[in-house]
Amino acid sequence: MKLPHPVTTQFFSVQDVATAVHTLGLPTVFQRLADTIRADYLRWNDFEKCARVANHSKDGVIELMPISDAKTYSFKYVNGHPKNTQNGLPCVMAFGVLADVDTGIPEFLSELTLSTALRTAAMSVVAAQALARPNSRTMALIGNGAQSEFQALAFHYLMGVQELRLYDTDPRATEKLITNLGHTTLRLRLCSSVTEAVRGADIVTTVTADKTNATVLTPDMLEPGMHINGVGGDCPGKTELHPDVLRASAVFVEYEPQTRIEGDLQHLPADFAVTELWQVLAGQAAGRADAKQITLFDSVGFALQDYSVLRLMRDLAKELGLGQPVNLIPELVNPKDLFVLLQPESQPARTAPGVIKDIILA
Amino acid sequence: MKLPHPVTTQFFSVQDVATAVHTLGLPTVFQRLADTIRADYLRWNDFEKCARVANHSKDGVIELMPISDAKTYSFKYVNGHPKNTQNGLPCVMAFGVLADVDTGIPEFLSELTLSTALRTAAMSVVAAQALARPNSRTMALIGNGAQSEFQALAFHYLMGVQELRLYDTDPRATEKLITNLGHTTLRLRLCSSVTEAVRGADIVTTVTADKTNATVLTPDMLEPGMHINGVGGDCPGKTELHPDVLRASAVFVEYEPQTRIEGDLQHLPADFAVTELWQVLAGQAAGRADAKQITLFDSVGFALQDYSVLRLMRDLAKELGLGQPVNLIPELVNPKDLFVLLQPESQPARTAPGVIKDIILA
Repeated sequence: MKLPHPVTTQFFSVQDVATAVHTLGLPTVFQRLADTIRADYLRWNDFEKCARVANHSKDGVIELMPISDAKTYSFKYVNGHPKNTQNGLPCVMAFGVLADVDTGIPEFLSELTLSTALRTAAMSVVAAQALARPNSRTMALIGNGAQSEFQALAFHYLMGVQELRLYDTDPRATEKLITNLGHTTLRLRLCSSVTEAVRGADIVTTVTADKTNATVLTPDMLEPGMHINGVGGDCPGKTELHPDVLRASAVFVEYEPQTRIEGDLQHLPADFAVTELWQVLAGQAAGRADAKQITLFDSVGFALQDYSVLRLMRDLAKELGLGQPVNLIPELVNPKDLFVLLQPESQPARTAPGVIKDIILA
Repeated sequence: MKLPHPVTTQFFSVQDVATAVHTLGLPTVFQRLADTIRADYLRWNDFEKCARVANHSKDGVIELMPISDAKTYSFKYVNGHPKNTQNGLPCVMAFGVLADVDTGIPEFLSELTLSTALRTAAMSVVAAQALARPNSRTMALIGNGAQSEFQALAFHYLMGVQELRLYDTDPRATEKLITNLGHTTLRLRLCSSVTEAVRGADIVTTVTADKTNATVLTPDMLEPGMHINGVGGDCPGKTELHPDVLRASAVFVEYEPQTRIEGDLQHLPADFAVTELWQVLAGQAAGRADAKQITLFDSVGFALQDYSVLRLMRDLAKELGLGQPVNLIPELVNPKDLFVLLQPESQPARTAPGVIKDIILA
């Protein structure tokens, strides 16, 4: 009888992500993440894509985000519950899996709460590097919650942003952000209104969390040449931008069918013209037309970024010796004999044939 | 500052499932599973349902199966790779999650390879109890692979089936089945063809695995009053029954939109009449008309059964003290401060504030 095929799932925890960041440094992790995302976006047509599958409830949403190419499948589980912070919980929690397309083995199971924050910021930079004016140094950061430090530092490390203009309806959120960024050379300016924060900014990043059709940015705030990085409008009924902000801009999206449902785009007619970002990255569509144009990345978070961050985390697990095996899938001596796992002689379960590889191979 | 909200994910392994079955006995587990499935089917309209989301490749498929009611969300990851057994791997591997709809916390992460085999068999019995003649004692079992023992024993324990007529194209599969069922009082008859196995059977269960449009059952094999439990035709291009078998039968399905795509039903016109099983269970539609009618359950596996088995496994984890916590989601002192997880002072990571509950509460 053949030896059993190894069925190993590697588990990568929050601690593993933190250790990887501490070992390599956040600038390196952001750089590698942006490079991975860009490389995957350049293979756009290799992927089987769909809009994410959402189960909505009164105060939130739970979503599954699958995507695959010929070799690798990934999905993310993620929630969005803006009121969670009132109960001491994050708004967004996530985990995900990389699987082998040829066999279906779920090979890598990772936390994605922290990793989603990293990949969202890296994605924003990939878009801004293609769309914002290259000499952008000042960014307004509207919404200073869980995602804000990641946006701030990704733009600082990868785009050379030197000054942040901060605004949040909750002053304690801004205070926390300032504390967390104290170790950097970023100039931090506390602003008392969105208008004040946006004035003169090269880049405007909106990362607010309410599940409501808010109007954080209005057309009167726009200035020629701005790049708007709209991150917080990412689900039906959860938007941040006045429709005229989109009408005044060249609008770029991740995956058009999903953004039409979820993005700030949901308030505009179905024929409102947008460009998928991958086309710009691949040189198949124009990005910014000139230094006066307003560009807008209507980011909702697409499965391909999760594929990218999972791929990077799997690489880092190997490079740095992180992660640990988890017994998610049974190993079987005879793959047609699943029932053996329930046989009395298989007890105690920890030594069941087909369960523990070491014993089978011994 | 508030104490952090506990974010605990309980992990339930293959060993935990095996231990639960050994502690309670397989008949009890099957009974409780059938009861749970039936109870959930009687709440059919409470659920937000969708056909599963499938990524197909040449030799297989990877699927996500979400479903939710007002309180609880569940999903299953499952593959189907019929050629896997040639490489020593199971055709079907699975895991899944129960999550809290109000907060999005993934509370329970379970293996579902073994549990899917249990729930598929329990579901078959729930359908057969509603559709087969009550005095059914003989079952043909076509396909003697990984799912076959589970079907055999669920029908034995819960329906009183006493005799099995076995057929598989691979005689070693049947040999394995006979060995595994040696401890029971079931009469096992080895048959040399499908026709021989089906002749005189009250119930015909087909659980073959090829991803091909096979014709395991043909109309000439049918006898008045039979109940057909068609389990193996469960994905586009993977069927078992000649279309005339369906035309000769009263056909019942789990969730019609999914079965039209995936079931043996895929070969019939879109207006071919079928009945959703929940309607029969709820007394809203007729089941079997008379003792001569042929009934057919075109089973593909629906997300609600996974919700049910996850719910039962979570109950068993509590009752029997099984499972263990896994650090899938970070705990945060301040839910708007995710970045703290990356702060240097949070090292070593195992004692990071917000990561280890014991330390925060100490």
